Amino acid sequence: MRRKLLRAFGSVALAGAAAAASPSGDVPDETLRLARDLCESAAKGTRAADWVASLTDRVGPRLAGSPGDRESIAWALSTLRALGFERVRAEPVRVRVWRREAESGEVVAPHRLPLVLTALGGSVATPADGVEAEVFRVHSLEELDSAAAGAAGKIVFFDKKMERAADGSGYGRAVDVRSHGASRAARHGALGVLIRSIGTDDNRLPHTGGLDYEDGAPRIPAAALAIPDAELLARLLDAGERVRVRFRLVCGDSGEADSANVVGEVTGSRKPDEIVLLGAHRDSWDLGTGAIDDAAGCGIVLEAARRIRELSRRPARTIRVVLYANEENGGAGGKEYARAHAEELPKHAAALEADAGTGRPRGLSWLAGSSAAPTLAAIAPALAPAGAASLFPEGTGGADITPLRAAGVPVFAVLQDATRYFDYHHTANDTFDKIERDGLDRTTAAVAAFAYAAADLVQPFERVPPEKRTAPRRR
Amino acid sequence: MRRKLLRAFGSVALAGAAAAASPSGDVPDETLRLARDLCESAAKGTRAADWVASLTDRVGPRLAGSPGDRESIAWALSTLRALGFERVRAEPVRVRVWRREAESGEVVAPHRLPLVLTALGGSVATPADGVEAEVFRVHSLEELDSAAAGAAGKIVFFDKKMERAADGSGYGRAVDVRSHGASRAARHGALGVLIRSIGTDDNRLPHTGGLDYEDGAPRIPAAALAIPDAELLARLLDAGERVRVRFRLVCGDSGEADSANVVGEVTGSRKPDEIVLLGAHRDSWDLGTGAIDDAAGCGIVLEAARRIRELSRRPARTIRVVLYANEENGGAGGKEYARAHAEELPKHAAALEADAGTGRPRGLSWLAGSSAAPTLAAIAPALAPAGAASLFPEGTGGADITPLRAAGVPVFAVLQDATRYFDYHHTANDTFDKIERDGLDRTTAAVAAFAYAAADLVQPFERVPPEKRTAPRRR
Repeated sequence: MRRKLLRAFGSVALAGAAAAASPSGDVPDETLRLARDLCESAAKGTRAADWVASLTDRVGPRLAGSPGDRESIAWALSTLRALGFERVRAEPVRVRVWRREAESGEVVAPHRLPLVLTALGGSVATPADGVEAEVFRVHSLEELDSAAAGAAGKIVFFDKKMERAADGSGYGRAVDVRSHGASRAARHGALGVLIRSIGTDDNRLPHTGGLDYEDGAPRIPAAALAIPDAELLARLLDAGERVRVRFRLVCGDSGEADSANVVGEVTGSRKPDEIVLLGAHRDSWDLGTGAIDDAAGCGIVLEAARRIRELSRRPARTIRVVLYANEENGGAGGKEYARAHAEELPKHAAALEADAGTGRPRGLSWLAGSSAAPTLAAIAPALAPAGAASLFPEGTGGADITPLRAAGVPVFAVLQDATRYFDYHHTANDTFDKIERDGLDRTTAAVAAFAYAAADLVQPFERVPPEKRTAPRRR
Repeated sequence: MRRKLLRAFGSVALAGAAAAASPSGDVPDETLRLARDLCESAAKGTRAADWVASLTDRVGPRLAGSPGDRESIAWALSTLRALGFERVRAEPVRVRVWRREAESGEVVAPHRLPLVLTALGGSVATPADGVEAEVFRVHSLEELDSAAAGAAGKIVFFDKKMERAADGSGYGRAVDVRSHGASRAARHGALGVLIRSIGTDDNRLPHTGGLDYEDGAPRIPAAALAIPDAELLARLLDAGERVRVRFRLVCGDSGEADSANVVGEVTGSRKPDEIVLLGAHRDSWDLGTGAIDDAAGCGIVLEAARRIRELSRRPARTIRVVLYANEENGGAGGKEYARAHAEELPKHAAALEADAGTGRPRGLSWLAGSSAAPTLAAIAPALAPAGAASLFPEGTGGADITPLRAAGVPVFAVLQDATRYFDYHHTANDTFDKIERDGLDRTTAAVAAFAYAAADLVQPFERVPPEKRTAPRRR
């Protein structure tokens, strides 16, 4: 997950209302019964962790355009085929390639101390012997703008702390310095940027993540300090020291490469040309093995669709699993899917993305036309065995399906407990051992139940109204 | 702390008995009252964390013979002087120097996957392009010996899990593979050794620590895998794969260097030639900044002695603070102190070492002649405000004061909650932010109260009987 807003705007839980509502005519009783059965059995245990282990232990890191990215395309094709999916294929996606080769840093004054840091994804390299300057600390983009004169010739240190929260909302409030800090500081004459990692742990394992260089601003190198190292800088600065830092990044853009969205289907029984899309992203950052981000999502959607495929009664519509390319640093997979399938998008009845780790479900977020509300209220009880019966309107879907939302496709996500997610997110620590099996299975259960019901509705959900198809640009 | 046995043999708590006993004639009421006052005030908050921050943030890593080791001698001298200690001096210690320059590893078959590992302290380097071989897994030294034929030409992987425990006892049960695995595997023809890190965390931050090459065994390179990486190897092996690994270590012995034990005193009022020694070690491993191991101990003994010095009524005996050199990889500081002070050792009334992090106190361990028991029972209630009134006989003191115990000097330690200590021990994660202030202050309080009472006893503790002066050699 890159920077999807986990916060559910207006998080009014409608579970109580749902339980009281009589089933809508759009949702046959038999559909609801089968969806609930799916949920109940999957919540007790699934094979999702097997697919996660397979991707992380057999392929490992898979940044767009890397050898691991290519290997994971082969992995996805063979896995989808082995599990019996139909029309399994790799749909080509061109991606920009960014590579990390070496990185190091140190405090050089008042005393020499090593610093643990990692380049932000997309950063330019430093000069070969690094960039060295006095540190200028600010706590936000706004503080930088109001104290801009201090940044010229300095390394700007964004000391902004992410707060832990079950809904992950601390991420959205902190991540702007990662996305926009480099260009903002560069406009004020800074030579480089260091941020306190956007995370909630206390490990010397920095959090990478994409930055966005703005047109017209000089491109300066930017890196994230591990949280203990950011706190070291902060203590020295708090003590009134003038702190000089040097850091060196060998990294950068290295052209384009071929990648792919990997797709497989469970063909619908009565409306096979209508699609319920279950997405997750196949790529990962390079530091860990992308277990929670997003092998977990791949495991969830593979397993949810596999369990639907094994039912004796298939849903009316086709379940399409899409394992997207390049979510983390470019979003080319999501954009290319929407472009290549533009003519087919009116036939996309729903899209759900799984990209929130393996915490337990908290509910289902949704964005569709308002008439979907009673239908969803009828479906929600089927998600109760997974703990996901609460409904959160005004959902955002997920990064890869944002281009589908822009075309009016109703988007969904199972919201999960994110309390620990940002301890590991985008770090070397994102490895298989961090998978919480119970949360993984329950999320799989909720996705399977929702997907089954959505694919079997008499009438599809009302499309997203035009005014809600694009999210406000976040800074 | 290197590998002191945290387990208290025969952990019978005598606190109840202590509370009931009438004060021994050896412990004046006024002494007990002042000791308890010291404890009570320090338990509420001390400056110990300031000294810890100063050492970790101003000097940082300080492996014996490194630039940081030399800087920390200067730091210790100036800190002891600034705090008003007397006869502050650096007592020379020659140390062997071991250096880590680079390290890397990967699974090469059945798939290529990066591995996070770190050389064990004292390891020889690999050939320049690394050592590559099939992995041969065992779970203990004993299993290796019983399956020895399988090790020839292989990289032996010791997959032994350390268990978490409040008394740290899991460490003693697991650490033999780190100390002795390399020589044991080499005798069976292995080319290299990888161990699962001796730790209790789930971070990709491997735990270093010393190994002991045995005379007559080939010296082969040895490294610790981060726990998630050890678990990756284990999963591949569990799946029946033949796993090949390559690792490369650039490290090794680089001769001798000058270091020092740094000493300062609070002169006793009536028996100034008799000594109560408070020790901790100034050196650290190179990966972190040695905050819990053992800047914490330095902070504890500095602050405990500083608070005693500020009392209007000084104790009878001299409190001597010793910040030892080279505890982690050689023990030269402790040995040299005992050698240089051999004539003075009969005047050492007690020695306490603080080298167990910043968990809360659990009690006081002791080893002395049996007549010390009632005296300690009288002293123990003075440690109650710190939560340290329980007594644990058959203590081991600490690595640096083991040579004093060998001369009969009674040895003591404040036992601390070690539940989280081995999450960070010997890793890059051992940094100031891991300091638990409450545990640090309470341990300081217990040390101060004990030291005051020990230094003010009418008769010193009975010496350690000869049969208990040397610990059985642990394998």
